[in-house]
Amino acid sequence: MPHIDVDENLPGIRALLAFSPATATPIGELANLMLRSNEGLSMADRELIASYVSYLNDCFYCHQSHGEIAVCYLDDNRELVDQVKKDYLNAKVTPKLKALLSIAGSVQKGGKHVTDAQVNQAKALGATDKDIHDTVLIAAMFCMMNRYVDGLAASTPTDLSGYPLRAKQIAEHGYGNHVFESKQPQN
Amino acid sequence: MPHIDVDENLPGIRALLAFSPATATPIGELANLMLRSNEGLSMADRELIASYVSYLNDCFYCHQSHGEIAVCYLDDNRELVDQVKKDYLNAKVTPKLKALLSIAGSVQKGGKHVTDAQVNQAKALGATDKDIHDTVLIAAMFCMMNRYVDGLAASTPTDLSGYPLRAKQIAEHGYGNHVFESKQPQN
Repeated sequence: MPHIDVDENLPGIRALLAFSPATATPIGELANLMLRSNEGLSMADRELIASYVSYLNDCFYCHQSHGEIAVCYLDDNRELVDQVKKDYLNAKVTPKLKALLSIAGSVQKGGKHVTDAQVNQAKALGATDKDIHDTVLIAAMFCMMNRYVDGLAASTPTDLSGYPLRAKQIAEHGYGNHVFESKQPQN
Repeated sequence: MPHIDVDENLPGIRALLAFSPATATPIGELANLMLRSNEGLSMADRELIASYVSYLNDCFYCHQSHGEIAVCYLDDNRELVDQVKKDYLNAKVTPKLKALLSIAGSVQKGGKHVTDAQVNQAKALGATDKDIHDTVLIAAMFCMMNRYVDGLAASTPTDLSGYPLRAKQIAEHGYGNHVFESKQPQN
């Protein structure tokens, strides 16, 4: 049960965004800017980083939600998304993305865990400064989102059938208040 | 040295916000909404929570910056701010704020560390749902900010003389792009 009195019909972060619509606006904008762009990193790359960090933070709602959005961008390849979460080194993704996932994993532990060697490796594999910036900010952002959701014990639907439907809506329309603040239940 | 090529004249997060002005806008808005309000929690309470979480995350730039802003709101009582960071249970703050700092400390470890007992204790001491929401979101937000700063190895001035000056500007004018994106060096 959530730690505060939120709308029980809204799952995960959506109940929190509805509880606090003022902060929902910049949170939605940040999500759109960082996840709905193909500049440098693709939208699929970005959602994989988000899902991987959320998996490391053991935030089921977030890693499931963002994993399903990645699935939408990756021709329904759910197996690949699952492998990135659990064992990205052996997943069929580019060496560059593996180097960035390594950085994201360090950010999840704490900012100072990121090493020069990791950054140099990513750059040697083609990562730009913007790619590294975006990777660190996405990973950091999900260290916020995951703690927001689980720190308030937001409800997490265990019926997996709702996630793909919701993911499809986001994959088509993006994040933002029209999505975050929607009163329509996920399941 | 920062992991990416940012303006060396800007300290800490300011260099990152200048590197990525698009994301600086929602980040600044979120900071203003969560830290520049006296609704429920005072601005001093909010900066103490921010500084305490940043101290736990070992982010010197953030705990020093936000500690100095708290100092501005607390009649220059730097000793109190330092004690909240290092030993809040014995600091001269209200039992309600101690209960909220306990929740913030759990959020820093991970969202699931927050217990019903902690939340019930805070409520028994007068915390509203909004106070608990704001505490969790501020703590979560600084788990993002700290990782953004240290994950990109943003420069951290070790000369402490610049922090109070900068803190005074924020205490007077708030966060937001006019502050975050200013090209004026801190020191």
